[in-house]
Amino acid sequence: MKKILVIGIGAGNPDYITIQAVKALNKVDVFFLMDKGQSKDTLIDLRRDICERYITDRHYRFVEARSPERERGDVDYKASVDDLNLARQRTFERLINEEMSDDQCGGFQVWGDPALYDSTLRILQAILASGACAFEFEVIPGITSVQALAAQHKVALNQIGGSIEITTGRRLAAGQVSDTDSLVVMLDAQDAYHQVADRETDIYWGAYLGTPDEILISGKLKDVADEIERVRKAARLAHGWIMDTYLLRKP
Amino acid sequence: MKKILVIGIGAGNPDYITIQAVKALNKVDVFFLMDKGQSKDTLIDLRRDICERYITDRHYRFVEARSPERERGDVDYKASVDDLNLARQRTFERLINEEMSDDQCGGFQVWGDPALYDSTLRILQAILASGACAFEFEVIPGITSVQALAAQHKVALNQIGGSIEITTGRRLAAGQVSDTDSLVVMLDAQDAYHQVADRETDIYWGAYLGTPDEILISGKLKDVADEIERVRKAARLAHGWIMDTYLLRKP
Ligand SMILES: C[S@@+](CC[C@H](N)C(=O)[O-])C[C@H]1O[C@@H](n2cnc3c(N)ncnc32)[C@H](O)[C@@H]1O
Ligand SMILES: C[S@@+](CC[C@H](N)C(=O)[O-])C[C@H]1O[C@@H](n2cnc3c(N)ncnc32)[C@H](O)[C@@H]1O
Repeated sequence: MKKILVIGIGAGNPDYITIQAVKALNKVDVFFLMDKGQSKDTLIDLRRDICERYITDRHYRFVEARSPERERGDVDYKASVDDLNLARQRTFERLINEEMSDDQCGGFQVWGDPALYDSTLRILQAILASGACAFEFEVIPGITSVQALAAQHKVALNQIGGSIEITTGRRLAAGQVSDTDSLVVMLDAQDAYHQVADRETDIYWGAYLGTPDEILISGKLKDVADEIERVRKAARLAHGWIMDTYLLRKP
Repeated sequence: MKKILVIGIGAGNPDYITIQAVKALNKVDVFFLMDKGQSKDTLIDLRRDICERYITDRHYRFVEARSPERERGDVDYKASVDDLNLARQRTFERLINEEMSDDQCGGFQVWGDPALYDSTLRILQAILASGACAFEFEVIPGITSVQALAAQHKVALNQIGGSIEITTGRRLAAGQVSDTDSLVVMLDAQDAYHQVADRETDIYWGAYLGTPDEILISGKLKDVADEIERVRKAARLAHGWIMDTYLLRKP
């Protein structure tokens, strides 16, 4: 039986990797690297580095595949993600069928944790359900960017006895969030924090968390929102891409 | 300056520990172990085991402190937690003042991640704000029980583009949750999943995740809720305590 390991590698700091992930890396014969445009070189290099750093005495190889891109612009978001995932599913099937022999172990290194805003698990489950290939798979959790954010700001995600909502910039901008006192926003391409009504809300913002380029800003929205927008724009320009996340905490 | 490291050790599997946590453990002179009743022996042993396993060539010691217990029964929840945290704050102050010299490093090993339903960060921030002791501190994230749950069930926490709410059994039972399609419930002492109206909801339940005693059950609430209650009761009886978490996913 083919075996696939979906390995969370943490969201930034190479030291975020767990012992479980190190053991998993050391079982893999072939790593599948999905090339994802812009931030690609950095992220692919990081995956290669992680293998070099943590794999001992084992022969492994990499297969790079072009990851299809989501259609941008004026399209239905859910539908464009569905299309994208179908295209990725075909790519994964091809990799599993053509690049692994029956007794081999394949590995996907997933940024952060595979359970958080990542499609690898959904695609593998869909392939199994379709019967297009047969394999076993295992999931190894990794430190998420949400945890990196909280750790670097030294704050808890929840208030005492309260709940936490993790959501996207798209949902925040569309007003599709609950009125929880702790809201974590990811995947924000549009500075959606400007749309939070209560400007006394505290924001804990972090970009490139866990990396040497990390930037942290915190304070009340009324005091720091403009600064965050400025810093964000400048950082995106300088790097060519940005990854950032923030926690909104009601006063 | 005294230094304190708040180290997430993951929520069950000793292999959940990160390289960053291993490096942090190797800097600590004195570990503070907070004794928390029931599950105490197991959890304190686990912390000692982690030190033995991962600390190399370094002298360290343990200080155990009785952690005050929250008043149970018919009391205001928020107030009883506040009281408890104030008592803990006094305990922490004593430990930091009496058990560490100025150039030493103290360590708290926190179950899972320090940012999720844990009071260590809040207490340390309160001590710093009060000026009762001076120290620097750093936070090292750890794999949470929420991530262990998702990994073991091999599911993503979010639906495509959707949000995730993490909450407590208390809030679910009181109807204080939003209508998100992905709800994670922790700290449920009362089988609150029985109160979810839509019995077609999928539940992914896990107890003692990442440990040799792990139990996983999943299915539609209408099919598995009674089984979960039975298994839960039996497990709590057998172990004397239980830790369990679940994801509720709208159909
Ligand atoms: C497709 S999601 C993947 C999340 C990832 N699976 C995780 O566990 O963090 C990408 C989003 O994660 C956040 N993110 C990932 N890494 C980050 C980092 N190092 N610093 C800040 N935000 C990050 C950003 O919000 C980004 O838009
Ligand atoms: C006080 S909270 C601490 C959470 C911890 N900081 C974390 O990151 O997972 C305790 C709750 O976490 C959940 N929990 C912790 N460890 C668990 C495990 N190994 N299996 C299942 N649930 C767990 C249970 O819901 C329990 O009531």
